[in-house]
Amino acid sequence: MRVLVIDDGAHRADLLRDELARQGHEVVGVIEQATLIHDCVLRLQPDVVIVDAESPTRDTLENLATLSAKTPRPVVVFAEDEDRGTMRRAIQAGVSAYVVAGLQAQRLAPVLHVAIARFEQDLALRTELSHAQAQLASRKLVDKAKGILMREQGLDEDQAYQRLRKLAMDRGEPISQVAQRVIDAHDLLRG
Amino acid sequence: MRVLVIDDGAHRADLLRDELARQGHEVVGVIEQATLIHDCVLRLQPDVVIVDAESPTRDTLENLATLSAKTPRPVVVFAEDEDRGTMRRAIQAGVSAYVVAGLQAQRLAPVLHVAIARFEQDLALRTELSHAQAQLASRKLVDKAKGILMREQGLDEDQAYQRLRKLAMDRGEPISQVAQRVIDAHDLLRG
Repeated sequence: MRVLVIDDGAHRADLLRDELARQGHEVVGVIEQATLIHDCVLRLQPDVVIVDAESPTRDTLENLATLSAKTPRPVVVFAEDEDRGTMRRAIQAGVSAYVVAGLQAQRLAPVLHVAIARFEQDLALRTELSHAQAQLASRKLVDKAKGILMREQGLDEDQAYQRLRKLAMDRGEPISQVAQRVIDAHDLLRG
Repeated sequence: MRVLVIDDGAHRADLLRDELARQGHEVVGVIEQATLIHDCVLRLQPDVVIVDAESPTRDTLENLATLSAKTPRPVVVFAEDEDRGTMRRAIQAGVSAYVVAGLQAQRLAPVLHVAIARFEQDLALRTELSHAQAQLASRKLVDKAKGILMREQGLDEDQAYQRLRKLAMDRGEPISQVAQRVIDAHDLLRG
């Protein structure tokens, strides 16, 4: 696996790099500045990100949250901090594994594998959620646009829907986008 | 915390019980039969379930999946098995933490706390998903029922919706349920 290491103040990156190499993985980069996380992931395309920290800083967690939203990757945090608030913030930032006092050579492989399985399940759930939310939002827009066409142009429901479908096909746009245009135009004309 | 321990063949339940007690937790039960998990959780209302296993059996994982669907609780699996398939099945069964070779006294507290934070986030995500899915399903039913009322009773869209709302209020039922009744009646009459 390609691994990006964030050295967040624990300074065990050399040890980590050696052990990962011994286990057949490649450390594609070691960075110390949390603000670089997202850029480095884009550029280096790691399979996993490991954060080695005494206690992950707020800055690191914010940058991990951005990563999770934009370019999700399995993230493992090795920390010494048992504070429950820090743990919760790390989990909320999309961290797949938060391991306290667990940076030992023989535990590295199972921790990485569990984190990847967790990440995949989490991503599937989030994808399902955003799909359902998008469907719901699209349906609401289409309903609203249909209502406008029915009132303003004296169409029945089916005709209004067919009108929207035809507009979408003619423009090569999703029907939700065409519905939004109809709503916008209506709002504009009504001033 | 109230802890239910599943002794899944590792036979370290006594050690675990002593350590949990020392850390101020209460072991409300120790069971060896996976089929009892769901019943025991209902009866004993633990805050956390710990599975102590060499390798969690398929039977245990199936019963954990049932628990996750019916009465979700944070579940921590301590195992020695590094097999990736087993890990993945455990995560899919709703396990909040799968810890390999990590049953040490000083790691118990952070593992439990991370598992609880993970569990809460996971539950929130699942709740959000089922809410979005239910809204979508309800909207589809209401749309279909509205269409029937518009065609069959010559109502416009708004009148059809008001008819459904009034039926729902009169019967004290959710509008989606009333919509389903309208659809069923229509299907029946068209035979």
